Amino acid sequence: MATEKCFAKGSAAPGPVPKGHIRLFSMRFCPFAQRTRLVLAAKGIKHDTINIHLKEKPDWFLEKNPFGLVPTLETEAGEVLYESPITCDYLDEVYPEKKLLPTSPFGKAQQRMMLEHFSKIPPYFYKITMAKKNNEDLTGLKAELKEKFVKLDEDLATKKTKFFGGDCISMIDYMMWPFFERLEAVGVLCLLDGTPELKKWFNHMQEDPAVKACSHSTETHQAFMKTAYIDGKPDYDYGL
Amino acid sequence: MATEKCFAKGSAAPGPVPKGHIRLFSMRFCPFAQRTRLVLAAKGIKHDTINIHLKEKPDWFLEKNPFGLVPTLETEAGEVLYESPITCDYLDEVYPEKKLLPTSPFGKAQQRMMLEHFSKIPPYFYKITMAKKNNEDLTGLKAELKEKFVKLDEDLATKKTKFFGGDCISMIDYMMWPFFERLEAVGVLCLLDGTPELKKWFNHMQEDPAVKACSHSTETHQAFMKTAYIDGKPDYDYGL
Repeated sequence: MATEKCFAKGSAAPGPVPKGHIRLFSMRFCPFAQRTRLVLAAKGIKHDTINIHLKEKPDWFLEKNPFGLVPTLETEAGEVLYESPITCDYLDEVYPEKKLLPTSPFGKAQQRMMLEHFSKIPPYFYKITMAKKNNEDLTGLKAELKEKFVKLDEDLATKKTKFFGGDCISMIDYMMWPFFERLEAVGVLCLLDGTPELKKWFNHMQEDPAVKACSHSTETHQAFMKTAYIDGKPDYDYGL
Repeated sequence: MATEKCFAKGSAAPGPVPKGHIRLFSMRFCPFAQRTRLVLAAKGIKHDTINIHLKEKPDWFLEKNPFGLVPTLETEAGEVLYESPITCDYLDEVYPEKKLLPTSPFGKAQQRMMLEHFSKIPPYFYKITMAKKNNEDLTGLKAELKEKFVKLDEDLATKKTKFFGGDCISMIDYMMWPFFERLEAVGVLCLLDGTPELKKWFNHMQEDPAVKACSHSTETHQAFMKTAYIDGKPDYDYGL
């Protein structure tokens, strides 16, 4: 897990990617970057992490990735990759230890279809956070999110497996996890009450070594969110 | 190219997928389904095509794919896939003839990153069509789309290649093409005037055998669009 303070505009660029390593440009509280952190941890890939101040991005970072997104990966050869599912699939293909994606083309396609459905869920975390900040009624948003959880619950119930890709943890679980880790911080952990299979999955996930290694406590998430959404001044180095 | 009339609600389900074939559920004028049609054509994959009435979907189709989307693929084994990039990547992985994606993990990631950027473009086709229908001013929408074309033009100019993945046509070109085929029908072909590299690409694409085999003329696109957006009653069998 990254423990380094973030690099902001005006900071000196880090040196070249160390030999035999891959570099992750991240932000400690970004759920999308956490996906890549989870894959790096699960596969035991040697890497270093450069945290970026997302409100004041260094010029040298924008030169590497003009879109300024985290997660971004940089290889020893200077190849630059971004978009969380692309970085994760790349790592799984290049580093053969502990494959997280199925080997069959249909199995891979199934994981991508699950991710496509899941992609409707992350926006609710932002919407709920903003609605709370503005003291708006959350009933509608919560009901919509709950409905999506019910679908995930049904999926697990139909499959009769511990995880979404089978009885072992796989890529899709890591893609989904960062948002579930923030359920309590966002104040909607109760949504799991009516979805017993999803709750079991949630509990299994918390036992995974990579999940443990890459997690923040609910208190830490809440404290960061306060700086970002209430104070409007994200403290990317909170807790360091 | 599919020449069969569409299957609507109440129609008898087609028989099983013929041995040695793969089945595409499509709609003749859908640009997303055209991506899959292009890949099937480019790779010479044996397939049959079932066109779906998208306003009155048959129950047997919704049973196969509850989301009711085209393109959907069905294999001989009854596996069902959807989302155009997922269907296309699957076909490229399963059918080794004429590989359309690079073999290197970074090359594959580059194509996915290009597609991610391109994904901001298709919504403009719908927005421009609707704005025209409502007699709204198109200046802003056209300027935004033009800006995106300029980025694509710069990308080709930097790469100094005929196509987006190199000097040979590859997956990303086929993913982009269906929208360019409709430029004239939507009335914005003139946007290519200030982007000479993109215009050259546009001309190269029109020479490709798969593009030729899967295309409709501008007149046909316009006639279908009239039924869909002006009359509000899409004629999925237009021209048959």
